[in-house]
Amino acid sequence: MKESLTIVKVGGAIVEDDARLSQLLDDFAAIRGKKLLVHGGGRRATKIAASLGIETQMVNGRRVTDADMLNVVTMVYGGLVNKNLVARLQAHGVNALGLTGADANVIRSHRRRPVMMTVQPDQPDAVPEQREVDFGFVGDVDSIDGKVLQTLIGEGITPVMAPLTHDGGGNLLNTNADTIASTVAKGLAEAYDVTLIYSFEKPGVLSDPNDDRSVIARINRDDFVRYVADGTISGGMIPKIENALQAVEAGVGRVIITLATAIDGRHGTIIQNSEFKIQN
Amino acid sequence: MKESLTIVKVGGAIVEDDARLSQLLDDFAAIRGKKLLVHGGGRRATKIAASLGIETQMVNGRRVTDADMLNVVTMVYGGLVNKNLVARLQAHGVNALGLTGADANVIRSHRRRPVMMTVQPDQPDAVPEQREVDFGFVGDVDSIDGKVLQTLIGEGITPVMAPLTHDGGGNLLNTNADTIASTVAKGLAEAYDVTLIYSFEKPGVLSDPNDDRSVIARINRDDFVRYVADGTISGGMIPKIENALQAVEAGVGRVIITLATAIDGRHGTIIQNSEFKIQN
Repeated sequence: MKESLTIVKVGGAIVEDDARLSQLLDDFAAIRGKKLLVHGGGRRATKIAASLGIETQMVNGRRVTDADMLNVVTMVYGGLVNKNLVARLQAHGVNALGLTGADANVIRSHRRRPVMMTVQPDQPDAVPEQREVDFGFVGDVDSIDGKVLQTLIGEGITPVMAPLTHDGGGNLLNTNADTIASTVAKGLAEAYDVTLIYSFEKPGVLSDPNDDRSVIARINRDDFVRYVADGTISGGMIPKIENALQAVEAGVGRVIITLATAIDGRHGTIIQNSEFKIQN
Repeated sequence: MKESLTIVKVGGAIVEDDARLSQLLDDFAAIRGKKLLVHGGGRRATKIAASLGIETQMVNGRRVTDADMLNVVTMVYGGLVNKNLVARLQAHGVNALGLTGADANVIRSHRRRPVMMTVQPDQPDAVPEQREVDFGFVGDVDSIDGKVLQTLIGEGITPVMAPLTHDGGGNLLNTNADTIASTVAKGLAEAYDVTLIYSFEKPGVLSDPNDDRSVIARINRDDFVRYVADGTISGGMIPKIENALQAVEAGVGRVIITLATAIDGRHGTIIQNSEFKIQN
């Protein structure tokens, strides 16, 4: 039987809120066994960019990363957020080591080409328009090399991953933190029984968006198809769960979507393979 | 016989100058065998601080690190400079991994207490004054744990170290890059035959500051005492060489002070133990 590994992804909203971050670090430190943390940091990047006089441009909720913004996210994700998380985890007795995808060549990516897409306008009454969007220095993942991560984990180290990758040609690229988390989970699935936990602003996937008690306990691909068809799952939750299903189909044990204050693996929605047998 | 390890320290002036940095990275990539890079980044930190409206305060050429400046150096040293060096080394075929002293608990330090000192005024005609100076979030090194570095180096990884340490209580601290380099060199001296190369704006320690051909080939402690007494070595070079001598006295094979464009170990001034036998 494979040893278990818990991967927790924590978003920018938590990283920026000191009280919630303290709680999360306590909870993360309390997770037994081998673990790995993946973090975002977008809100802080936006703030620091503004202080530097750099305007943040978003298209459909996604950041456009020009050369100046790439420097900002490199500073904020790779430096400010990552190194403070590492120092604070060290104080919690967790032997953390911070990495980007460039470090030890862990995650390679290529720069996303400009794409034709339907752009939602900023003003709610304006009409969506079809146009070509260049997201700039954004990396779509090509490969993961889990070997060094495995060595580090084997030495009792807890890797802390920032949402940056590299193209192998000397360029850093901005990569979505959810994608970093699922990529790392898939890359380590052969070596470990991986539980991937996405910390979230809701207690899980809700069947009624207005009722936090309506958490759907388990979702496999059949459920997903049904929930999308009947409208229970919509909007940004669709790619999130598609991403989670691809992870479990690639060998990740389970993906859990849960509140940032409930990352113990016993709360939230479990995304699992269709063949999964209920064990508890 | 121990395997050799080359540690190169490169200052902020090189890191910021693209042409000289490219040359340095080529030369560093060409060094055979196991290696490790330590970098500064002070000038870029000063620039970015200025863009953020944060004033850089220096006392006798040393940065005062208040809370805002600590955030800046964390972003610039730990993020911008470190991760770009890593990505560029990857493109040179060097499997780099960037670290601060907080990562894997490599270097612990404590915050420097306010010290009474003679402060050189900014205006050349003003009188130096004796006063208490608080350098802020500056870390004086307590300990180095070379175990994880050794594991990484053993896996073919080249560590790239930023000049930041931590106090074990969750706080990052700003630590001089020369000190990081000598600390790491001493911490790895038992495992490897270490050559520590300080890249410098001059071709070595000069007997005549106006003649770049007057490089002193070798300095041991006896030479140092003599050169300080007769004024050949003075000013900022005194602590630099004292630091180098302490490193060789703690087991580092040799320290070389040389031009950033001549880091092949065959140029510059060699600082060595008094007992050292000349081999070539």
